[in-house]
Amino acid sequence: MTPLTSPLTTDLYELNMVQAYLDLGEDKQAVFEFFVRRLPARRSFLLAAGLDDALSYLETLQFSPAEIDWLKSTRRFRGNLIDYLAGFRFTGDVHAIPEGTACFPNEPLVRITAPLPMAQLVETRLINILHFQTMIASKAARMVLAAPGKILSDFGLRTAHGAEAGLFSARASYIAGFAGAANVLAGERYGIPVVGTMAHSFVQVHDDEMTAFENFARARPEGVILLIDTYDTEAGARKVVELAPKLKTDGIAIRGVRIDSGDLAAMAKKVRGILDAGGLKDVIILVSGGINEDVLQKMMAEKTPIDGYGIGVNLDASIDAPSLDCAYKLQEYAGKPRRKLSEGKVTWPGRKQVWRSYGTDARMRGDVLSLENDAQTGDTLIEPVMRAGKRVGSAPTPAQIRERAARELARLPEPLRKLEAGFNYPVQISEALSALAAQTDVKTRG
Amino acid sequence: MTPLTSPLTTDLYELNMVQAYLDLGEDKQAVFEFFVRRLPARRSFLLAAGLDDALSYLETLQFSPAEIDWLKSTRRFRGNLIDYLAGFRFTGDVHAIPEGTACFPNEPLVRITAPLPMAQLVETRLINILHFQTMIASKAARMVLAAPGKILSDFGLRTAHGAEAGLFSARASYIAGFAGAANVLAGERYGIPVVGTMAHSFVQVHDDEMTAFENFARARPEGVILLIDTYDTEAGARKVVELAPKLKTDGIAIRGVRIDSGDLAAMAKKVRGILDAGGLKDVIILVSGGINEDVLQKMMAEKTPIDGYGIGVNLDASIDAPSLDCAYKLQEYAGKPRRKLSEGKVTWPGRKQVWRSYGTDARMRGDVLSLENDAQTGDTLIEPVMRAGKRVGSAPTPAQIRERAARELARLPEPLRKLEAGFNYPVQISEALSALAAQTDVKTRG
Repeated sequence: MTPLTSPLTTDLYELNMVQAYLDLGEDKQAVFEFFVRRLPARRSFLLAAGLDDALSYLETLQFSPAEIDWLKSTRRFRGNLIDYLAGFRFTGDVHAIPEGTACFPNEPLVRITAPLPMAQLVETRLINILHFQTMIASKAARMVLAAPGKILSDFGLRTAHGAEAGLFSARASYIAGFAGAANVLAGERYGIPVVGTMAHSFVQVHDDEMTAFENFARARPEGVILLIDTYDTEAGARKVVELAPKLKTDGIAIRGVRIDSGDLAAMAKKVRGILDAGGLKDVIILVSGGINEDVLQKMMAEKTPIDGYGIGVNLDASIDAPSLDCAYKLQEYAGKPRRKLSEGKVTWPGRKQVWRSYGTDARMRGDVLSLENDAQTGDTLIEPVMRAGKRVGSAPTPAQIRERAARELARLPEPLRKLEAGFNYPVQISEALSALAAQTDVKTRG
Repeated sequence: MTPLTSPLTTDLYELNMVQAYLDLGEDKQAVFEFFVRRLPARRSFLLAAGLDDALSYLETLQFSPAEIDWLKSTRRFRGNLIDYLAGFRFTGDVHAIPEGTACFPNEPLVRITAPLPMAQLVETRLINILHFQTMIASKAARMVLAAPGKILSDFGLRTAHGAEAGLFSARASYIAGFAGAANVLAGERYGIPVVGTMAHSFVQVHDDEMTAFENFARARPEGVILLIDTYDTEAGARKVVELAPKLKTDGIAIRGVRIDSGDLAAMAKKVRGILDAGGLKDVIILVSGGINEDVLQKMMAEKTPIDGYGIGVNLDASIDAPSLDCAYKLQEYAGKPRRKLSEGKVTWPGRKQVWRSYGTDARMRGDVLSLENDAQTGDTLIEPVMRAGKRVGSAPTPAQIRERAARELARLPEPLRKLEAGFNYPVQISEALSALAAQTDVKTRG
């Protein structure tokens, strides 16, 4: 079966346009930038993510003979397009803001510089990768900020939107500061710590819960986490207390318990009491079910005795904001800046750079969006990451990106670390960029 | 690279439990059912989808030598699990409600009957496939009901949650009655009609819009759809009027125009006026951008002259309800019914059947959820689809499923066809099932 990562994972209009460009000989250099137009209601920053998968896509993009045959069989395309696709390799340049960087609307996360048909062909899948990972990393960052010091794990694969959403969520949330994910493929693909407990069905197949706990602990003696809410959570906790000494004599330590239903805060307090009274002060409490950043904030404010959270679809589908308004827009063609003027969807023309300044407290103070060679004060965020289809330098590992993200989150202005978005981080448009935009308006309207 | 459809696309806890089951010799027959617990706020029915992909997953599920080597390298698992996985093939039975059937909470969409470790191992990915496709088909059905006779197309791949979400959305929305999708892979994989127009960038690379329109029409002369809102939509429409006769002399007909920004309803009326006055009464108007079922309903109520809608992330991420509360629960083990009692998450034990009755108007009147062999009146919805790992009969094509869905939507009671959920379709629990649940309560609580 044709894999999901096939170049056929694209919109038909990309192929239609490439056909037209080939017919017209329009293959001069084009510059496209991917950016987010505006933030969802409760977001005040983005955490850039997805670049490494986007670069892997560009590096390996090739049509197989079977895919070419299928395209031919549709009889939609002429020989020149078929030949072009059969020999296609991405040989363009890519500039980007590194993954794990805090960023804002209108700031280009990725810029593609390539002959027009090539830059056009990659549009759909590039957006598909960058939009989703950036959305999830940004969502996960809110959870990380809301629950400092807590163990957060991605449990969302089952109700993620397909296999890739589950995989990308594991990566993007790990980058943002999660401890790990339940998704085994995320371990294999990205080296992300894989975590897991047990299901209610495990308890149900046993005639009594105590036997289920003991059997599970003996089968999986490392880092034992027992799910105690299948029937009666408090009774489950008491069974853990009863079982612990017996397991201990066999060298098996119970690491924690998990609660997956009911009033998690109230139950965690009761369970903490039972465990402590039973001498199990070191046994941690994990909870799952309906966890989002607001729940985390409330749990922290109330000092609920919960050590870790398994977070499902609230993370993997970014439930409160399951999409970002984003675009991949032509900013320059054949050396000339281009600008789209559709109502409510105006874009900034030209190749751009983002300059960031910091206050004396080392917190981010404001950005300037400028043309690429129009020097401003501050650090530049956009750097070359691919030249002529080859990566520049070696790719940072997810763990390295995670460290960068932690530094970035620590440098966010305090209002941006809150769950409510009440503060607009200043992103100034440079004079030269404003002037170019005004000039481009006149030219394209004329 | 390990594909997304790898059996490693699973939660670690599945492997942990299979390890324990193998150690314990717990491999008696287990029955799990997948069902939705409750409907999102604005839903009043579900449209079952995803079964065919779920069965393909079960049929082809195999660990590659590389995957087995990786699992070994983690040093998490014992030899008995590694051997079990290395030789794994799914040989269980599957019963299901056919795709394209309207259904309701607590009704099992899919039942798996297999030795316990086998039935457990497939949980995560089965939910991942069934949850998403059913959610999207149910969302798309609302759009189809809101806009009878209109051409609806899935344009959502770019901001779908990864590649598979885009592919599955194309399939699920087509089943529900969409005309087609922009995703090329959906054409290759499922034979779904692939549709597409052009991007703003195509217009932008040309020095004037008229030349862009003419070039696109000549390059893609079949079913030409011109995007007219890059600069000024009304001016774009007038250029189409001017261009049409010239193209006609060369045998090229303009099929339609597309508007992707601004006040779509107001603009569609103006554009319709311009096209009609210019003798282009047959040229259709397509719109895109922010379309959902409420917009569709409003457009229909106002008789807006729009012929088709490209629908993006509102469909592909089911924006208003991006997840369903669903479960894959153990209902029977070793011949004995099982029931989970966690607070707020009670399940119905045993193997079940759904019986559906119709009124004299041929509309659905109510369902009964019963034990499998407890005959009730009405038609049965659950049928065998896989025996000992092999499909029963041949799989219906997406087009056949789409026909079934159209019949189902026509048989929905009138209140269920509205966008607001104010009517609870009656799903009665049979006496024997109620009695068994009560009896199972006593046994498992004891």
